[in-house]
Amino acid sequence: MAGPGGPGWAPPGGAGGEGPAAPPPPALSHLAADGSARMVDIGDKPETERRATAYARVELRPATLAQICARGTPKGDLFAVARLAGILGAKRTPDLIPLCHPLPLSCVEVAIEPEGEAALAIRCTCATRARTGVEMEAMTGAALAALAVYDMVKGLDRAAAIAEVRLLEKSGGRSGPWRRGES
Amino acid sequence: MAGPGGPGWAPPGGAGGEGPAAPPPPALSHLAADGSARMVDIGDKPETERRATAYARVELRPATLAQICARGTPKGDLFAVARLAGILGAKRTPDLIPLCHPLPLSCVEVAIEPEGEAALAIRCTCATRARTGVEMEAMTGAALAALAVYDMVKGLDRAAAIAEVRLLEKSGGRSGPWRRGES
Amino acid sequence: MAGPGGPGWAPPGGAGGEGPAAPPPPALSHLAADGSARMVDIGDKPETERRATAYARVELRPATLAQICARGTPKGDLFAVARLAGILGAKRTPDLIPLCHPLPLSCVEVAIEPEGEAALAIRCTCATRARTGVEMEAMTGAALAALAVYDMVKGLDRAAAIAEVRLLEKSGGRSGPWRRGES
Amino acid sequence: MAGPGGPGWAPPGGAGGEGPAAPPPPALSHLAADGSARMVDIGDKPETERRATAYARVELRPATLAQICARGTPKGDLFAVARLAGILGAKRTPDLIPLCHPLPLSCVEVAIEPEGEAALAIRCTCATRARTGVEMEAMTGAALAALAVYDMVKGLDRAAAIAEVRLLEKSGGRSGPWRRGES
Amino acid sequence: MAGPGGPGWAPPGGAGGEGPAAPPPPALSHLAADGSARMVDIGDKPETERRATAYARVELRPATLAQICARGTPKGDLFAVARLAGILGAKRTPDLIPLCHPLPLSCVEVAIEPEGEAALAIRCTCATRARTGVEMEAMTGAALAALAVYDMVKGLDRAAAIAEVRLLEKSGGRSGPWRRGES
Amino acid sequence: MAGPGGPGWAPPGGAGGEGPAAPPPPALSHLAADGSARMVDIGDKPETERRATAYARVELRPATLAQICARGTPKGDLFAVARLAGILGAKRTPDLIPLCHPLPLSCVEVAIEPEGEAALAIRCTCATRARTGVEMEAMTGAALAALAVYDMVKGLDRAAAIAEVRLLEKSGGRSGPWRRGES
Repeated sequence: MAGPGGPGWAPPGGAGGEGPAAPPPPALSHLAADGSARMVDIGDKPETERRATAYARVELRPATLAQICARGTPKGDLFAVARLAGILGAKRTPDLIPLCHPLPLSCVEVAIEPEGEAALAIRCTCATRARTGVEMEAMTGAALAALAVYDMVKGLDRAAAIAEVRLLEKSGGRSGPWRRGES
Repeated sequence: MAGPGGPGWAPPGGAGGEGPAAPPPPALSHLAADGSARMVDIGDKPETERRATAYARVELRPATLAQICARGTPKGDLFAVARLAGILGAKRTPDLIPLCHPLPLSCVEVAIEPEGEAALAIRCTCATRARTGVEMEAMTGAALAALAVYDMVKGLDRAAAIAEVRLLEKSGGRSGPWRRGES
Repeated sequence: MAGPGGPGWAPPGGAGGEGPAAPPPPALSHLAADGSARMVDIGDKPETERRATAYARVELRPATLAQICARGTPKGDLFAVARLAGILGAKRTPDLIPLCHPLPLSCVEVAIEPEGEAALAIRCTCATRARTGVEMEAMTGAALAALAVYDMVKGLDRAAAIAEVRLLEKSGGRSGPWRRGES
Repeated sequence: MAGPGGPGWAPPGGAGGEGPAAPPPPALSHLAADGSARMVDIGDKPETERRATAYARVELRPATLAQICARGTPKGDLFAVARLAGILGAKRTPDLIPLCHPLPLSCVEVAIEPEGEAALAIRCTCATRARTGVEMEAMTGAALAALAVYDMVKGLDRAAAIAEVRLLEKSGGRSGPWRRGES
Repeated sequence: MAGPGGPGWAPPGGAGGEGPAAPPPPALSHLAADGSARMVDIGDKPETERRATAYARVELRPATLAQICARGTPKGDLFAVARLAGILGAKRTPDLIPLCHPLPLSCVEVAIEPEGEAALAIRCTCATRARTGVEMEAMTGAALAALAVYDMVKGLDRAAAIAEVRLLEKSGGRSGPWRRGES
Repeated sequence: MAGPGGPGWAPPGGAGGEGPAAPPPPALSHLAADGSARMVDIGDKPETERRATAYARVELRPATLAQICARGTPKGDLFAVARLAGILGAKRTPDLIPLCHPLPLSCVEVAIEPEGEAALAIRCTCATRARTGVEMEAMTGAALAALAVYDMVKGLDRAAAIAEVRLLEKSGGRSGPWRRGES
């Protein structure tokens, strides 16, 4: 299967192959000048309070949603399993995302609730006091909670899928607060 | 934040709260009769060849795609980082998805290619000879490769997001081959 | 602090220091003849079905037990957190217990219930088809579930403690079934 | 197996089912108001020096104790294996205990010595400078050292068991020093 | 720093840049035709008994060697720590070496002994019954035991270093037995 | 196999067995007075900027080097795989080297380049602000990058081996800067 860089493959937009014309685009900070992957040096950045929230949505059939919510109400562990998968996953981020820095998370919360009649919405919020942000921790936590939901419903509902994993907002650091849809 | 089961919360579809009427829906195999999470007993299932492919899509701005593909062409590690995040993630599935069984993966492949002008498509294929399937390994591998791409482009393209993570096909096991859109 | 082998330390029972008299005691299989730790070679043992159940007891004040069971009844995640800590811990046994072999667990179950008015009883059952047993997986699962309960109640009940972690029964392998109290 | 919350199950002490009468008991900090598990937010707590010691006891037959101490004296790795299992386990606490925060441990020590003629006593001490305490690191370290001892002696002494894992003392943090038996 | 593929960098031997002339060299099995890293598919290979031994040498000053051996003789944990680092490292190979398959190791042994007056020799032997070999498990175990020795002596002996990590022999699999220096 | 401490084994240099004569050598800080392994208490040391660089060399046949550099130039992931194995390995150091402290790495870089006609040179640099140094992180990163290279070339070049893993320089901490060959 020919991937980027394979024989005969051309990047979309045409200009890619020769390199972009002036002005040069902002650099990808995870790649050195020669293209090598690296963990960016954050040693000179100040420690500040950082917070980020990511959102994931699992789409499933209305009957599946009704069943897991019914089960969930009095006694079932399904939502608890997904919350824990998210919390544990957020803590594991530097092990899973190769270029992420290890951060001393001060808080992880995962909230799960129905969204309409055929989806579950997952929100994962992480916080720390550190030299870099916790976006990836929030994204990884939301994605793993969603994967755990999918794992538990896939036997009932083969067409279930994760429909979205995206950052909702973040604060702290030089670039200040950001919220999806506002920039 | 009131989640499922919180005070005043009602499941969508109405019937959920009282439990579904007859006939009873198929059980969630990861929950025991009393709702407790468990790792399903697969000891009596035969070992068969299993294979599954999952798909994830990362949406980004056309300029971002052009830039990373340009970088990717001659020398950049971006695609390699994402492929490895997917391969390593697939191998760690039983650590990450609480109720998954450990499986001796015989193969993991992650392919990444542009899809249109504003997305990267990621396909992760896993195989094993085991008593249960590798759907979660393929899904976890695809999701982690997508998260790694997001990590590397988020500094350039704040609105980038994972737009989808879903199973494309699987084979092996009692239920036989399945392909999205055909059942 | 003088440990075994420290200066002036003598083993209980007297005979220890000079080495036991005839007949020699059965060897510790995890130590080579010169005392070096090793992972025992199980390559020549046949694969058989193995199963083991371990038990742990967490002692707490009656008021604490009443409170967590009240919370547990309608909606709380406390028991689910402990069950998952046990299941995930059982899967990670070869990483945690240095001389354990990696085993393809086919099942892990953790059951938790009140025992009298001031304790929770935890039972962890593991199964596999392998060349060695799953006693350590069951013991590790029970211990980690108990530690997770302790973690959640320690703020309420400082005197809570784990009172016991022991094997209840096992089956499979050359030595056949064994049940505590019967041999 | 009916666990808490299962059909027909009633909490001990009677009052549990309806919830305790006034005054309300102190909350379980690991559960949100709706019962969801969460990693408590410690972002506002000051960093202070924290220290904790936990104790575990492994009970075994006098002959087993004599044998492992004899072996231990000149050359055997048994005590070293248990100490390392405890040290490595303490470092892994946030991976194993779902709601624990990652902490930069500044010290872990595991001491093992005979206690009477039929037990080994294990003490694990951990220290850090952080926003929360190291009780769980000490408890996890003691429990894993005890499990490693059990693993190595179980072939000789089937009735061996872990008889206790409990916190002995802790210091640092808002609540100040605490020592078992003094409060 | 210009790495391979960086601007102005030319491979040694001249022919590299344009690609080798006929006949083509044997392929690197870990790279697909387009250069993408992948975990090789071993699903069609038969399970056979596999065994491999790797060797590492740590060079240190004679005084350091005399000191750690003196300590090691009656009571010290230094050699035990290194043996366990090797055993645990061998078990974690698929987590550490990105393209390695998970294998059910049936045995790991690490032997350490002085070699001349200024070195320690480490030999790590691994075995399994699997579809691929255990060379990387043996190499990783030997390297981690050597790193653990270095960690413990570096405060005494700054010039200590790992002088070699190499495979000594392997058996099992299609290519049959191999021993360094014989082929 | 008789290791140190085994029957009939004598340490080199003669004096070892009885213990060294006066003056006593500097202590091994990882061993307590009775020889027990421990994680050294660094709680009283100040936090300072720390940096270390380690070097590893993989020796291979000139034809192998030419082939992987040719592949590496336009598209191959080989160097990227090795860089990531090094970066991920450096982050995992406290899990792998039993007595290492967990450190919040602020930077990891792995550079790989040909050295002469038959070797690859790997340099791994780590940095942190912490109470202890990052020598082991740099050493572990360099060793794991070298192991990953070996894994990928071993099918082509059976005699390939890691020829060296050593610290090049470090700075920060009480003992100040150090550079190999200068002390």
